[in-house]
Amino acid sequence: MTQVNEGAVDLVQVIRGDMVESVHRGHAVICDESGEVIEAWGNPSAMIYPRSSCKMVQALPLLESGAGAHLTTAQLALCCASHEGQTEHTSAVDAWLRDIEMSDADLRCGSHMPYSEDAKADLIRAGKKPCQLHNNCSGKHAGFLTLSKHLGAGPEYVEPDHPVQLAVRRAFEEVTGMESPRYGIDGCSAPNFATRLDGLGHAMGLFAAAREGQGARQDAMVKLTRAMGEESFFVAGDGRACTDLMRAMGGKVAVKTGAEGVFVAILPELNRGIALKIVDGGTRAAEATIAALLVHLGALDAAAPVAQRLTYGPISNCRKKVTGHYRVTLA
Amino acid sequence: MTQVNEGAVDLVQVIRGDMVESVHRGHAVICDESGEVIEAWGNPSAMIYPRSSCKMVQALPLLESGAGAHLTTAQLALCCASHEGQTEHTSAVDAWLRDIEMSDADLRCGSHMPYSEDAKADLIRAGKKPCQLHNNCSGKHAGFLTLSKHLGAGPEYVEPDHPVQLAVRRAFEEVTGMESPRYGIDGCSAPNFATRLDGLGHAMGLFAAAREGQGARQDAMVKLTRAMGEESFFVAGDGRACTDLMRAMGGKVAVKTGAEGVFVAILPELNRGIALKIVDGGTRAAEATIAALLVHLGALDAAAPVAQRLTYGPISNCRKKVTGHYRVTLA
Repeated sequence: MTQVNEGAVDLVQVIRGDMVESVHRGHAVICDESGEVIEAWGNPSAMIYPRSSCKMVQALPLLESGAGAHLTTAQLALCCASHEGQTEHTSAVDAWLRDIEMSDADLRCGSHMPYSEDAKADLIRAGKKPCQLHNNCSGKHAGFLTLSKHLGAGPEYVEPDHPVQLAVRRAFEEVTGMESPRYGIDGCSAPNFATRLDGLGHAMGLFAAAREGQGARQDAMVKLTRAMGEESFFVAGDGRACTDLMRAMGGKVAVKTGAEGVFVAILPELNRGIALKIVDGGTRAAEATIAALLVHLGALDAAAPVAQRLTYGPISNCRKKVTGHYRVTLA
Repeated sequence: MTQVNEGAVDLVQVIRGDMVESVHRGHAVICDESGEVIEAWGNPSAMIYPRSSCKMVQALPLLESGAGAHLTTAQLALCCASHEGQTEHTSAVDAWLRDIEMSDADLRCGSHMPYSEDAKADLIRAGKKPCQLHNNCSGKHAGFLTLSKHLGAGPEYVEPDHPVQLAVRRAFEEVTGMESPRYGIDGCSAPNFATRLDGLGHAMGLFAAAREGQGARQDAMVKLTRAMGEESFFVAGDGRACTDLMRAMGGKVAVKTGAEGVFVAILPELNRGIALKIVDGGTRAAEATIAALLVHLGALDAAAPVAQRLTYGPISNCRKKVTGHYRVTLA
């Protein structure tokens, strides 16, 4: 097994004044329609946890089973989301749970303050604590519950041996093209299956190559990829990298971040998938690198504000003075 | 000039389940009473910005000039602080500014939401915006203003050619033992002078070796180091690594964090100084490494809760399930 730091290369510099202050290393792969790596930086064999970047994979059994046939585009986007906890997100998940005759109490994701500063301030002003709906993963969990109900399975759907997670693991191993040697427990308590970076890239390549009418798997992949692009607000929220990147690409590309410096992209028009991991887990570097790779593939305009912001900055301080910038060093 | 990532070594692993998920590299030095490196990890020549870790150096001219002769221990601690913006911090800086017939309007640090979640919630509930007093650097700036007034200098005390910053630069170069090749603008708009990691370690060694009655510089060093240890709440705040570490060591050691993964320690009883930089800027790794080095030197009990928390964790999720832990890999 290749440890995550083996063979990593410098990907992003953080510059202050005219000096490099910090450097992020990592690995990145671009995969073709068969899931094969066609371009790589660092070590494609690095073993990683995809974290939230693989939510579209975790949603495959929901659709392939038929349990999610009735779901709206926004609900499918929420399945793949790490949302901001804005009212639009929480009320959509709440309504979905009521549709399946369930509630916040059936969720097993736990609660945390919403990522959205506005939503957080609203809760504070109302003297309320966050509920599980505010958890950035609540949409994924609503999907798990929908599948669990369809399967007639028990309430502890985040247990690794629960039918929902067994189905997720099977789909995960099929699309990554390799057995997962282990899992970790994610922030939302669901198992997160480990794979090599090129396994995650393989999955993204297959998602990109999926076409309708080629069976349940490809139908599911197409629906999820489209839903992410079309309802990108529900995948993250206002001002977040995922939403802004998808908006800048007209919804034609699906991108998804994961904790600890993971990022993926699905580019159906180009038949390409991207997966990357920053070794130190740095989000700013994962965002800079995915934006640079999207520009590299011609999918994102280098002059788009979000491309500029993520790959360069500038970085400014409390008095709005520019203090530095990023430099992506993909060679 | 040695770029920050040259010769860095692995310092901290982040483990999820039984697999290394992320790794932080960096450099660390332990210096003796003459400022010489006696133990090192990575590359002592790495060029860094000390950021807020050098606030005790930036405060030297305030004391050496006599301008700060009347300051209380808490005020001296605030000079060296990156405080939480709790009411105790902001009201102490406010009172200090009134003492010198100045106000928030004279500060040039800019404002940001207080780091303290409680203080932030208080502001939100009151419908107020943060002022410059809430800036984590407001104590350092009160010190700058006190010196500026003493010197009869102009109001723009963060300009690099202002008498205050010229004095800071002189002191900085003297205690680091080397010329600073450049500066960057810090988050609080003050210039932050670059040095090699062993330069920062050199300064910490001299602070540790300083004794009273050996001239203005050593007197200033002793007062600042003692103030940090004795009034550690004012250096950071409840629950923060700096405050908790100093409390756990009975105030006998001064420690200070800096943005982008810098941490220093001054150990007068052992005549040792520590400086470290995490290449990717990761705070969690800087905290884990400083705690491990303090344990290594016998200054911090490995069983102390703060030592356990910073060097191991455990890391838990929204449902308080343990998902992983840290592992400091100092070899």
